[in-house]
Amino acid sequence: MERRRFLNAAGTGLAAGGAMVAAPLVRSAYAQSNPEIKWRLTSSFPKSLDTIYGAAPYFAERVAAMTDGKFQIQVFAAAEIVPGLQALDATQNGTVEMCHTASYYYVGKDPTFTFGTALPFGLNTRQQMAWFYHGGGNELMREFYDTYNVVHFVAGQTGAQMGGWFRNEIKTPEDLNGLKMRIGGFAGKVIAKLGAVPQQIAGGDIYPALEKGTIDATEWVGPYDDEKLGFFKVAKNYYYPGWWEGSGQLMVMVNKGKWAELPPAYQAVVQAAAAEANNWMMGKYDAQNPQALKRLAAQGVQFKPFPKDVLLACQKAALELYDETSASTPTFKKVYDAYKVFQADQDLWFKFSENTFDNFVFYNQPKT
Amino acid sequence: MERRRFLNAAGTGLAAGGAMVAAPLVRSAYAQSNPEIKWRLTSSFPKSLDTIYGAAPYFAERVAAMTDGKFQIQVFAAAEIVPGLQALDATQNGTVEMCHTASYYYVGKDPTFTFGTALPFGLNTRQQMAWFYHGGGNELMREFYDTYNVVHFVAGQTGAQMGGWFRNEIKTPEDLNGLKMRIGGFAGKVIAKLGAVPQQIAGGDIYPALEKGTIDATEWVGPYDDEKLGFFKVAKNYYYPGWWEGSGQLMVMVNKGKWAELPPAYQAVVQAAAAEANNWMMGKYDAQNPQALKRLAAQGVQFKPFPKDVLLACQKAALELYDETSASTPTFKKVYDAYKVFQADQDLWFKFSENTFDNFVFYNQPKT
Repeated sequence: MERRRFLNAAGTGLAAGGAMVAAPLVRSAYAQSNPEIKWRLTSSFPKSLDTIYGAAPYFAERVAAMTDGKFQIQVFAAAEIVPGLQALDATQNGTVEMCHTASYYYVGKDPTFTFGTALPFGLNTRQQMAWFYHGGGNELMREFYDTYNVVHFVAGQTGAQMGGWFRNEIKTPEDLNGLKMRIGGFAGKVIAKLGAVPQQIAGGDIYPALEKGTIDATEWVGPYDDEKLGFFKVAKNYYYPGWWEGSGQLMVMVNKGKWAELPPAYQAVVQAAAAEANNWMMGKYDAQNPQALKRLAAQGVQFKPFPKDVLLACQKAALELYDETSASTPTFKKVYDAYKVFQADQDLWFKFSENTFDNFVFYNQPKT
Repeated sequence: MERRRFLNAAGTGLAAGGAMVAAPLVRSAYAQSNPEIKWRLTSSFPKSLDTIYGAAPYFAERVAAMTDGKFQIQVFAAAEIVPGLQALDATQNGTVEMCHTASYYYVGKDPTFTFGTALPFGLNTRQQMAWFYHGGGNELMREFYDTYNVVHFVAGQTGAQMGGWFRNEIKTPEDLNGLKMRIGGFAGKVIAKLGAVPQQIAGGDIYPALEKGTIDATEWVGPYDDEKLGFFKVAKNYYYPGWWEGSGQLMVMVNKGKWAELPPAYQAVVQAAAAEANNWMMGKYDAQNPQALKRLAAQGVQFKPFPKDVLLACQKAALELYDETSASTPTFKKVYDAYKVFQADQDLWFKFSENTFDNFVFYNQPKT
């Protein structure tokens, strides 16, 4: 109605033809709120890991779908632009607009980064999500990441990880003494207290290190990824649980300046696509791990729970580390003080329905 | 550039003024891909339950944010348009465009509806999400819901629920005989096998029934909601776990015809907002339940685990029911045959890292 009136007012008298001529005009004004934007995202992961890497292209696909293809995010695997462990740096300095990464890769800059992925003996996956969405975690971490010039969104979960691959058995806490182990994030400092020598190595580089004997043990994620990385070929003892990662939270991080330039609707779309990527990745690992577990068992892998003495010794070392780190690092203390109160409440509650449901159902399966 | 050329071609020669006159034209054409749409959503829940009800306004808010306010969804509480347990019917027949509900409220129409919320002794929350997103659950249920003229999206989780409020203690399976209990969904048929008399009552109507003695017991969700509903005032025994709901999955359901009319970008936005609402609700329950648990304890509530004999008797009844229902109802059999294979694999896998992590961390908390 309005459009017809304008066309008539302009004296062109176009009927059908008017729509065609008007198209460029429309596209230009449409761009005010739905601009065509092309961004680059650098992932910390290699393309071969279709779940942890795959969350980023899935995220990009969802952003495009919600914006009629106007907002395009091109995804680059680790090392295509920068190495996997420099994804944050590249985002912080504007080399790329955004990254998909694990916050705890950057604990070398500040131990507070660990809370964005997992705290050893900390929250499990559900609890970590609750902490971010409703427990104050998002706000505390936003304030922290702000000092690194990025805005974060939860965008992926591995679930509780396996404890990893060991050439030799771990029977007592003393067996960790002198052990050279690839281990992600802050957990390295925990096992160092027990005499182990932790290494931070990106996913694609671990196998050769284990094969050559540069390291004695490694952890990555769980059966589905670990099978692809081939660790079972050189270390047969597969321990659980990965006490350092009851939650393996991934994030997209966006350069602050670039974030501020986005129209509000695109900002909302990024947040929503991150939530979708989170659930996509978590569900994909959960759905794929059981089959990989069975294939690994068929390859002669020995599944072993960490002895309780080992868990208790590692937990004691972890709690000491948190107190020491709180004393030395105010950013860490601020988050940890809130986190540990939240965790105590969560664990109290989860002991009721969640854990009793799981313990009954998992161990009383009907014979099939 | 294109726009300027058109304006010149049209012979108006407008510079600044052109933009003003062009505005109506722009709005009209913009509407081709970003139309202004107003929908109505009916919730199965009362406004007082700010988490299970609240997921719907949160969902609507996110849809609006992603569409620059063009796609507005007005949310109505239970009974404002139709009663809480008729949300599906109102969506199916087009009274409203969509609803937010629990699929298992409709097991009276077909027992297959139970898989959209929870199967007693079935998947836990994480596993239910994995089943929907990557285990074939979404596809199976889409095919089923299609026969009810709706399209579904996972949009909320209560987590594993509590077992509910009982005037008298449940010490043996025989104590369920003759018990009049409000219980959601398919679980009613399970406890009926043990002699109980199940009732399907919407959230807002339960308290008066329990107070008057029309029912002897009730379950709803968990501490946060149950405290609001006041059950502790008339029944002090609070049992766990809610073996019938290891997952309490909520959904938005959309009338198929209305769904088909949405532009693809709006369809993508609905899907993403549903994922956000899912995580919002799950996190909100998890974050709020611990404090409510403590307040209930301070009110003298007696927390009691169901005796193992009771759980085993109920599980036996449940498995018999599934076999009988499979024999009588092909839609149920089709989903259950796939679901039980998926569950066996999930439970196998979750016994490794997830469950051992939880069992260690929950029961070895440092003293605070």
